[in-house]
Amino acid sequence: MSTSSVTVLGMTCGHCALSVREEVGAIACVTEVDVDLNSGRVTIDSTSPVDPNAIKGAVEEAGYELKD
Amino acid sequence: MSTSSVTVLGMTCGHCALSVREEVGAIACVTEVDVDLNSGRVTIDSTSPVDPNAIKGAVEEAGYELKD
Repeated sequence: MSTSSVTVLGMTCGHCALSVREEVGAIACVTEVDVDLNSGRVTIDSTSPVDPNAIKGAVEEAGYELKD
Repeated sequence: MSTSSVTVLGMTCGHCALSVREEVGAIACVTEVDVDLNSGRVTIDSTSPVDPNAIKGAVEEAGYELKD
């Protein structure tokens, strides 16, 4: 198991959090995604380490961006 | 044709606007719903006048409330 976390900018409501969770959750090997709307923190559990670019791509696909 | 408009509080993003549009659009006789996210203004076209309580109910069903 592997856990990583990123901070996502621009989420304003539960729908936003759900969109991010769905896109990130669709990445191969990801088993659980937790989104904290207030902080923008997204915590990702996976069976093996996830490519950071895949996370970035999923967040952008949902319509948001990563904090640098 | 009839047109009415209401102001909805609490919408923060396009997902919120879509939720309101879907619920209000499901009211009988409603043919078009336009949501302006910035102002919260929702404009409703219908083939006959829509019961204001139906609009209020739809907005609340989507998870928002009307401005008094």
